[in-house]
Amino acid sequence: MNDLKPAAELQNWKVTLAYDGSDFSGWQVQPGEPTIQAELQAALGRICGETPLPQGSGRTDAGVHALAQVASFALRAPIPAENLHRALNKTLPSAIRVIEARRVASEFHARHSAVAKTYEYRIFRGRICPPTLARFAHACTWKLDGALLDEAAATVVGEHDFTSLAATDADAAQRLKDGLEQKTAVRRIFSSQWSMTESEAGALLIYRVRGNGFLHHMVRNVVGTMLEIGRGQFPAGSMRSILEARSRSVAGPTAPARGLFLHSVEYGGADVEVESSPSGN
Amino acid sequence: MNDLKPAAELQNWKVTLAYDGSDFSGWQVQPGEPTIQAELQAALGRICGETPLPQGSGRTDAGVHALAQVASFALRAPIPAENLHRALNKTLPSAIRVIEARRVASEFHARHSAVAKTYEYRIFRGRICPPTLARFAHACTWKLDGALLDEAAATVVGEHDFTSLAATDADAAQRLKDGLEQKTAVRRIFSSQWSMTESEAGALLIYRVRGNGFLHHMVRNVVGTMLEIGRGQFPAGSMRSILEARSRSVAGPTAPARGLFLHSVEYGGADVEVESSPSGN
Repeated sequence: MNDLKPAAELQNWKVTLAYDGSDFSGWQVQPGEPTIQAELQAALGRICGETPLPQGSGRTDAGVHALAQVASFALRAPIPAENLHRALNKTLPSAIRVIEARRVASEFHARHSAVAKTYEYRIFRGRICPPTLARFAHACTWKLDGALLDEAAATVVGEHDFTSLAATDADAAQRLKDGLEQKTAVRRIFSSQWSMTESEAGALLIYRVRGNGFLHHMVRNVVGTMLEIGRGQFPAGSMRSILEARSRSVAGPTAPARGLFLHSVEYGGADVEVESSPSGN
Repeated sequence: MNDLKPAAELQNWKVTLAYDGSDFSGWQVQPGEPTIQAELQAALGRICGETPLPQGSGRTDAGVHALAQVASFALRAPIPAENLHRALNKTLPSAIRVIEARRVASEFHARHSAVAKTYEYRIFRGRICPPTLARFAHACTWKLDGALLDEAAATVVGEHDFTSLAATDADAAQRLKDGLEQKTAVRRIFSSQWSMTESEAGALLIYRVRGNGFLHHMVRNVVGTMLEIGRGQFPAGSMRSILEARSRSVAGPTAPARGLFLHSVEYGGADVEVESSPSGN
């Protein structure tokens, strides 16, 4: 009998996370700041004694939430998926929940493998935003013209250069340098739509947008611009000329982080569940 | 023409507040701690230059929320109710909202005038509590017998000595000394019921209780005890013997603050809106 086990091989993991981003400085690790990536890494360390840096499908900014952010990382520990899932939810703060944990092929990467992403932006339309919703919606009391909002949303569908609707800050320049942003500002938007839902607490106006990628601040700038159009500050139909201008200065303000949710990330099958590697038992 | 105005008389106010108690050390002012009472007092100071100490219908503990807490205070400033309402919501943090502000008779007192109060306790019953609900519900995954919960809830209706279900801590003794608690532990419960609501995020089990008064920790101890009965840790029907024992040690644990909401306070007409006093124009 041979009791010398071979060193366990690295197993690639995909975890899907929901979080309340209000009290975090965004996804990405920053020294001395509470971030989602740091919380996840620390939880893995406490559970397995391994601290790989989880790769997110993209960064979310400070205050932005997720219904289903995706992270990938590799572990040597031969832990069953259900146990890792449960242990993460016992270890992470209640503001971060793991929705699913699965083993995936070693090629899978939460950012590089993504083929589409969907974001949701929530706007509270009542007179007084209830404290239970205050962290999760932008309370906007302006009169808004629904037809103008719908037309502006429809205009961003298709392939466009989104320079006018991307952040121009130092951080964005650094992301470009770091290779986190593609050099082109061209993105394809598959769908872009407003809807209304009634809740016990009041009406919520919800914007949902699905595309093959998003520039830094792009969804919040699209929303901020649509709100200017919807309230009549920008002329009807101006979304088209704003896109064509390729200049951030012609667009509207960046809508507040609290209304934004990363809704879901699609992988076109690259995230299919795999058996654990034979040495991982 | 006489331009010497008489000094404005004190005008009594009733404000109704909703709050997310998660980040506050409860209602009552405590040096160096963020509290709802202190936030409201500071907001009044910024708006009117007057800082009366608002009297609450009762204290809520750290982490406990309110859908409609009531506070009363007196101001000299002849401010229209709608303006005070709007100014408070502009000044207070978004975790605290004023639902209503009205002038009331000088006899009105948020605590002394109350004739009934209703509390609500929310329990999340899904597998993974969404971060949007985590601050506002106790996530309880135990299997619970609904019939046992209903029977226990029905048992507390009527007039009972609630010694078994009241806090026995130093704070409670101090409250008794301060005259904030009546010397008797007898309270009348008008209704006490469980219900279930389905949300997008999962099922919520909701306990609602209405009574003429509540001892410190009473609702959380009633809930903690009912959960022990519902999961079979305490025998069926034991709520009656627990009440009769008049001993905190026989009851269940205190349910977490995050699930508790002060739902509403009733005044039987003592809170009717009044005109501002003639000198207050």
